[in-house]
Amino acid sequence: MALIDMFLSRAVTRGQLTLHRPGKPPTTFGTPDAEYGHITIRFADRGVAARIVRNPALAAGELYMDGRLTVDGDDIMGLVTLMKRNDAWENGQQALQPSALVRGIGAVKHRLDRINMERRSKQNVAHHYDLSARLYDLFLDADKQYSCAYYTDPGNTLEQAQDDKLAHIAAKLAIRPGMRVLDIGCGWGGMALYLNKHFGVEVLGVTLSEEQLKIARERAAAAGVADKVRFELIDYRRVEGQFDRIVSVGMFEHVGPPQYRTYFRKCRDLLTPDGVALIHTIGRLGPPSVTDDWTTKYIFPGGYNPALSETIAAFEGLKLFLTDVEVLRLHYAYTLHEWYRRTLAAKDAIVALYDERFYRMWTFYLAGAAQAFEHGGLVNFQIQFSRSRAELPITRDYMIEGERALRGV
Amino acid sequence: MALIDMFLSRAVTRGQLTLHRPGKPPTTFGTPDAEYGHITIRFADRGVAARIVRNPALAAGELYMDGRLTVDGDDIMGLVTLMKRNDAWENGQQALQPSALVRGIGAVKHRLDRINMERRSKQNVAHHYDLSARLYDLFLDADKQYSCAYYTDPGNTLEQAQDDKLAHIAAKLAIRPGMRVLDIGCGWGGMALYLNKHFGVEVLGVTLSEEQLKIARERAAAAGVADKVRFELIDYRRVEGQFDRIVSVGMFEHVGPPQYRTYFRKCRDLLTPDGVALIHTIGRLGPPSVTDDWTTKYIFPGGYNPALSETIAAFEGLKLFLTDVEVLRLHYAYTLHEWYRRTLAAKDAIVALYDERFYRMWTFYLAGAAQAFEHGGLVNFQIQFSRSRAELPITRDYMIEGERALRGV
Repeated sequence: MALIDMFLSRAVTRGQLTLHRPGKPPTTFGTPDAEYGHITIRFADRGVAARIVRNPALAAGELYMDGRLTVDGDDIMGLVTLMKRNDAWENGQQALQPSALVRGIGAVKHRLDRINMERRSKQNVAHHYDLSARLYDLFLDADKQYSCAYYTDPGNTLEQAQDDKLAHIAAKLAIRPGMRVLDIGCGWGGMALYLNKHFGVEVLGVTLSEEQLKIARERAAAAGVADKVRFELIDYRRVEGQFDRIVSVGMFEHVGPPQYRTYFRKCRDLLTPDGVALIHTIGRLGPPSVTDDWTTKYIFPGGYNPALSETIAAFEGLKLFLTDVEVLRLHYAYTLHEWYRRTLAAKDAIVALYDERFYRMWTFYLAGAAQAFEHGGLVNFQIQFSRSRAELPITRDYMIEGERALRGV
Repeated sequence: MALIDMFLSRAVTRGQLTLHRPGKPPTTFGTPDAEYGHITIRFADRGVAARIVRNPALAAGELYMDGRLTVDGDDIMGLVTLMKRNDAWENGQQALQPSALVRGIGAVKHRLDRINMERRSKQNVAHHYDLSARLYDLFLDADKQYSCAYYTDPGNTLEQAQDDKLAHIAAKLAIRPGMRVLDIGCGWGGMALYLNKHFGVEVLGVTLSEEQLKIARERAAAAGVADKVRFELIDYRRVEGQFDRIVSVGMFEHVGPPQYRTYFRKCRDLLTPDGVALIHTIGRLGPPSVTDDWTTKYIFPGGYNPALSETIAAFEGLKLFLTDVEVLRLHYAYTLHEWYRRTLAAKDAIVALYDERFYRMWTFYLAGAAQAFEHGGLVNFQIQFSRSRAELPITRDYMIEGERALRGV
């Protein structure tokens, strides 16, 4: 039995995977299971199998991008789902992990990558967020919220769920008129504009993406609030001043563990004595680990989804009051499925903007991320803390009540 | 200037402390501050000062118990409050810490203590919880909830707040009729009886305290539910079977860091595949540390209030889904203030039951604990997790709605 057959027979036990490869009859792995389905893949040449066996996490994505691994019906979500469900904790497997040697080398490399000095941070951000604004228009909601939405009902539209996410976070910030708010990693400005619109507050949004900055500023100008909602191209470590509230959505994933303490210390220094911060970040339920090679290479260089233990360990000892940790999981799966659907629908436009290889890379990324939340170990943490003992109410009721008031329900 | 003067002038900067000691005129430390107040203490002999300077955390309590350090008006809460407020994070001080050498020795000793083998666990529990049932009757609420209450309003009575705590936790357990529930560290049985009363479920409560066991069983018999609500004198590590829900209130403080992984692994093994657990435990906002010597010696041998980082680090990698972390702080301060008030009111009865020294020990313990929550770094964590991805709703609304339904509001 070839190594690839051993690998796939371990990786697929529920549901079925049929493999077509040059010079051999088709082989089917797994057992029929209506829920898990049946996926057919094809290897274009004899080199594909060996690369997958050596480092499946890196090779599968690259071979798919290059068209050397194809999925019938172009159903990359189906393939990733089948593999990830079989690999889920509940099923007791970790078949998709690279070998110990590959992991060891990767760990050292990732540690170096994650040191994240300022120049590198900007390059890392540009790699992803300076992609064409047109691309993000094609798969995000109209407000361009590029982070986990909040589904009060799984049947809600993405637009509704992103608006409800803003309400959910705003309620936790317990904002009062006259406050100054800092948005670290402001994206295209949606959160900053929302907080100004609903509370009349001044907001400073900072980003390292020139594309995001340009659009965020245009939006503030168009809304006639450019004097109250300002955006700057600046590293968070260089922000100065004092803010009553800090919000940071989908940015902590780019900070890197060696900088976690710097990040929290900077947040503390930027908060007024009664200040409150809310960090919204992807995290992993498992212990600290490393980002997979494919994601580091193609999607988020320098990116890392923290375990809660390492995040809190960096936070403790800074004389800050941890006030809440919420764990969102399926919300991000729903969000990513919708981004994936919109990406498929926009295939022609994306191929015209870039090329087929980029389109396949993007679908592979979104499918992998969706399944990491749906059947893997990723979640989204909302971590709230304050410099003050007394600023926030003593029960969480204000969060739900504030959110419902903003949603008008 | 004597060492004690240097120590107290550092320890008290806001508010005032006047010290009377043999052979010297009274000395006043600090600055007048109406909010912080003015406390007068007396040293009975010349040995008191040196012992306090050497290890204030241990000596202050012992000297107070022995009547060699007295507080005018017997206001030990006032003294502890003044010291703790001055030592609060916001004020930037850590004056009450013992010397580095004392801390180093303490850390080694505590590490040995915390290994917590079963025989030692039982001794540790007996030390505190096998105190006379009459004592607990004198300062706890009627339901004998010996843990942080839940104040939907700070003006609520302790009885109301303890009942609301049960509702708050029960809602997070998302119990359905027919489920089996395990209560690890069941105390005098209040939680187990509550869950049976409201959901009709079978509950097994386990404790290592013979006093608690006896009373819990009597209560179940008196309520006519002894067939559905059972109590056993058994170490949690020896419990067998499968439970849909696990609740553990005020017990994790006795587990000790070397056993945290054992604890969570045992919880996982005891949960059904759809099982949910809720751990309610005191914790520290600062980094991992050690329990102060006085508390270890007189109140909770083997006890330790965990940092969240070390708790979650022990939890990660066990293939469990962390679903929520709530942080309660002032709730426990309110609870402890009420226990303290009831202790003062029951002074004659407690002295009759034990003696003056025990009474002073108990008031010092409750005052110190109250101030650790009010002005120090202690909080109460409620950590919820599940073996299943799908068992719990995806938003936290069910928690508040369930709680309100149980409270009838």
